[in-house]
Amino acid sequence: MNNDRNRVPTSKLTAAEVAAMVEGELKGSGDIVVDGVDCLDDAEAGKVAFLGNAKYKHKVGSTSASVILVPPDFPLPSSSDRAWVLCADPSAAFTRLVEHFAPRPPPPVPGVHASAVVADGVRLPPSVSVGPGAVIEEAAEIGENSVIGAGCYIGYAVKIGVACQIAPNVTIREFCRLGDRVIVHSGVIIGSDGFGFTPGSDGHVKIPQRGIVQIDDDVEIGSLTTIDRARFGRTWIKRGVKIDNLVQIAHNVVIGEHSLIVAQVGISGSTRLGRGVVVGGQAGISGHLEIGDGAMIMGQSGVAKNLPPSARVGGAPAMPEREYARLRINLNRLDNIKQELRKLRQEVTQWQERDKDRAGPVK
Amino acid sequence: MNNDRNRVPTSKLTAAEVAAMVEGELKGSGDIVVDGVDCLDDAEAGKVAFLGNAKYKHKVGSTSASVILVPPDFPLPSSSDRAWVLCADPSAAFTRLVEHFAPRPPPPVPGVHASAVVADGVRLPPSVSVGPGAVIEEAAEIGENSVIGAGCYIGYAVKIGVACQIAPNVTIREFCRLGDRVIVHSGVIIGSDGFGFTPGSDGHVKIPQRGIVQIDDDVEIGSLTTIDRARFGRTWIKRGVKIDNLVQIAHNVVIGEHSLIVAQVGISGSTRLGRGVVVGGQAGISGHLEIGDGAMIMGQSGVAKNLPPSARVGGAPAMPEREYARLRINLNRLDNIKQELRKLRQEVTQWQERDKDRAGPVK
Amino acid sequence: MNNDRNRVPTSKLTAAEVAAMVEGELKGSGDIVVDGVDCLDDAEAGKVAFLGNAKYKHKVGSTSASVILVPPDFPLPSSSDRAWVLCADPSAAFTRLVEHFAPRPPPPVPGVHASAVVADGVRLPPSVSVGPGAVIEEAAEIGENSVIGAGCYIGYAVKIGVACQIAPNVTIREFCRLGDRVIVHSGVIIGSDGFGFTPGSDGHVKIPQRGIVQIDDDVEIGSLTTIDRARFGRTWIKRGVKIDNLVQIAHNVVIGEHSLIVAQVGISGSTRLGRGVVVGGQAGISGHLEIGDGAMIMGQSGVAKNLPPSARVGGAPAMPEREYARLRINLNRLDNIKQELRKLRQEVTQWQERDKDRAGPVK
Repeated sequence: MNNDRNRVPTSKLTAAEVAAMVEGELKGSGDIVVDGVDCLDDAEAGKVAFLGNAKYKHKVGSTSASVILVPPDFPLPSSSDRAWVLCADPSAAFTRLVEHFAPRPPPPVPGVHASAVVADGVRLPPSVSVGPGAVIEEAAEIGENSVIGAGCYIGYAVKIGVACQIAPNVTIREFCRLGDRVIVHSGVIIGSDGFGFTPGSDGHVKIPQRGIVQIDDDVEIGSLTTIDRARFGRTWIKRGVKIDNLVQIAHNVVIGEHSLIVAQVGISGSTRLGRGVVVGGQAGISGHLEIGDGAMIMGQSGVAKNLPPSARVGGAPAMPEREYARLRINLNRLDNIKQELRKLRQEVTQWQERDKDRAGPVK
Repeated sequence: MNNDRNRVPTSKLTAAEVAAMVEGELKGSGDIVVDGVDCLDDAEAGKVAFLGNAKYKHKVGSTSASVILVPPDFPLPSSSDRAWVLCADPSAAFTRLVEHFAPRPPPPVPGVHASAVVADGVRLPPSVSVGPGAVIEEAAEIGENSVIGAGCYIGYAVKIGVACQIAPNVTIREFCRLGDRVIVHSGVIIGSDGFGFTPGSDGHVKIPQRGIVQIDDDVEIGSLTTIDRARFGRTWIKRGVKIDNLVQIAHNVVIGEHSLIVAQVGISGSTRLGRGVVVGGQAGISGHLEIGDGAMIMGQSGVAKNLPPSARVGGAPAMPEREYARLRINLNRLDNIKQELRKLRQEVTQWQERDKDRAGPVK
Repeated sequence: MNNDRNRVPTSKLTAAEVAAMVEGELKGSGDIVVDGVDCLDDAEAGKVAFLGNAKYKHKVGSTSASVILVPPDFPLPSSSDRAWVLCADPSAAFTRLVEHFAPRPPPPVPGVHASAVVADGVRLPPSVSVGPGAVIEEAAEIGENSVIGAGCYIGYAVKIGVACQIAPNVTIREFCRLGDRVIVHSGVIIGSDGFGFTPGSDGHVKIPQRGIVQIDDDVEIGSLTTIDRARFGRTWIKRGVKIDNLVQIAHNVVIGEHSLIVAQVGISGSTRLGRGVVVGGQAGISGHLEIGDGAMIMGQSGVAKNLPPSARVGGAPAMPEREYARLRINLNRLDNIKQELRKLRQEVTQWQERDKDRAGPVK
């Protein structure tokens, strides 16, 4: 065992060092020592916390944190046992401290673990790390500095670029292709068969799914997401797309550059999303649609029609955001509408009665 | 091979023995022999069935079961070839019979399977069972009597308490912590990165996710659920929480003691649920919310605001249960509203016409 | 390494050969050579494409494909460098070409991989293939020609029929039974515990889940779907059912022959679906319901009541398709209803004012 690899970094910082590290302005004692980070609610003495959202400013008074990152205009409470660091973007500043204090696991060890199974003829660069029990089939190619986690299955003729991180227990089926710096989290399935059948005399007949999944550079895919292989051609996730957990992407879908797909979204077969589309959690998109660049689809929406670029839609079936907002207001007023209608009915009936009395029977 | 471990228990019982086992009152012949359990619909002769729900009482007459557990006040049909057992809680009584008859797999074998990969320096209590192909990384700690299933990945410095059951093919990433008697079903992913990015000039920039997942005692987590690690600090599942399958729990979420989360629910980042919250299947909860103790969230709801303790909400966006019920009634009456409005319109127009005739033109 | 197994078939075809293969009628030069298939949008010269949906007919003019399969009545543009093949069903014809051109991974190798762990006493037919790192527990039975992928877990006394394809990283728990020709995609979990608890003085008490999952012949199950074992008896997926990805099937559910369950659907405990039911993506079905043969449930619906045979429902809560369509129209007219009501109110009030002037005060 290599003891160096086992070391958990926990180097302490003074408040002055914190201020210097985040290029902020120190208020209060620079000698206060901290050894970690936490949120305002949970922080104990000896920790750094930050105010990232004005919504939480009431928590600054009551936190036990010893050093607090706040925006430049924040009114500082007087406190002898705390220090303040004024910074333009406390959240970004905090990230630097998180990185400083966070314990890290030892980096992956280059080379193939003895228990991994790499097919004959596969040549891996020496910088590649293949974890215990991983399986790499024939004709697969893996680029420099990529990491294949424990228990992964890398199918026949799969191509993986450089500096990819494939977490433990990922499955990538035959012929699929990943670009460079792709991050795939545990439990992801890439390249299973799409869901395609035709009716037959004795039940549904499987339509062969012979295409691939192509994933371009800098994509990140969350845990337990599944991306089906194309019927033919490719299911295609373009550069910079970020996909959350438990997302379903059907065969022949195309997702444009830098789109964001939040957890539990489902995208049906052959639908194409443009660049920079944002799809909120649990939304569903029907098949064979075109979603324009920069469209925003609210969580839990159901999109059943093409969307133009920059569309903003919500609801199921999805409608423009403003229309959806007005619909929700109208729904809240249904009781009023019913009451108003009842009142009008009464008044009109009353009039009819009175009129009958005054004017006699009407033909 | 140990033949004892291979034995499937199928010991038969007489109706009298059934009655004694469940502390119920026997009606009919105590000599009838049964060798298993089934539901009213499917049971064949020689099986025990039960009436657990008054909704199914019509099935009691037609079942082929030989012994039937019923509530004390159930009117018994006359039948010479069946026996009845009256018991206060037929469902609980039935569970005892299920346990008697159910075949069991052999218990896990203590020790580390020869094909498992346990890092140097990890010391496991002899009572721990590590299945074939499981991987346990450096600095991990596992408590007495815990079971790590085949193909599991237990990351660097993970801590698992005593008597935990980690089913096959589970992934637990570095530094995460599980308490005692935690049950984790197959395919669960604990501690993948949360979904956090900031806009950059060349696409989304990943915010490092350096916190952990902490899971307290007596939690159970269903298959293919994923719980993301915190950005910093912890995502925290408190004591006694039960989570169903395919649930998404984002970074920094906190779930209070004894909450129940039904299948396919999604809970967004930093939301905190109180004690004893119940979230119905496929519901979604937005980020940064506070859900009060004992709140009940109906299936498929979309919660976008804080909820007070004991709130009961439904719909998307979620509203109080009563309001939601009234909304659904109002929606059913939209046709009536339209008709009533049309009728009023006609009557008023008719009046206006008539009035014109009677009173001459109106200024 | 066996070089034959490594061969990727890419045999070229002339347009005349294409026409012969799909039994279509050639228009244009039969000498044009193609070496693969693609969709109209993406195809380059040297590829075959097809028009499967009249919706896309405008793409036929602009595609770069060299050979295009079209319906018999399609008006052919004049083009010297392209050939056309008229065929009754271009999509089915195209499938044959996909099969011709598609590269295939080498077929699974019969026998047990050296790194797989098969329990003592398990006898496998020589035609069975067990991939690297797969685990097969005691008393399991696997039929002729079945394939168990890398990293699979096959539990105690599981029975798998003939010619099944179990993809890599699948988990099948103890006692579950699969029929013949069942296809199970990666990441599927069959036979985890159902979600059942009773209230106790110190939290929820687990109800033991001692039944099995039974999957009949010709079923296909998509990636990351989970099917829970029954409390007792069986969760039962009948013959010919096709299930998409990320579907949740709870304990004691029964799904009738040839039903189709689209991605991300959730079916709650003890619900029974008849034959030929179709459930659209992301729909949810409550527990203890009966869904009649041939029912169609639209995507994202929420079914909370029994459905008769051939019912067609949508919405949440689900209602008959026509009613749902009318509801959506009515919702779009809420603004009109409000305006109409306001106008009536004004007119009636105006009348009341006028009448007061004309007739004096009214009692």
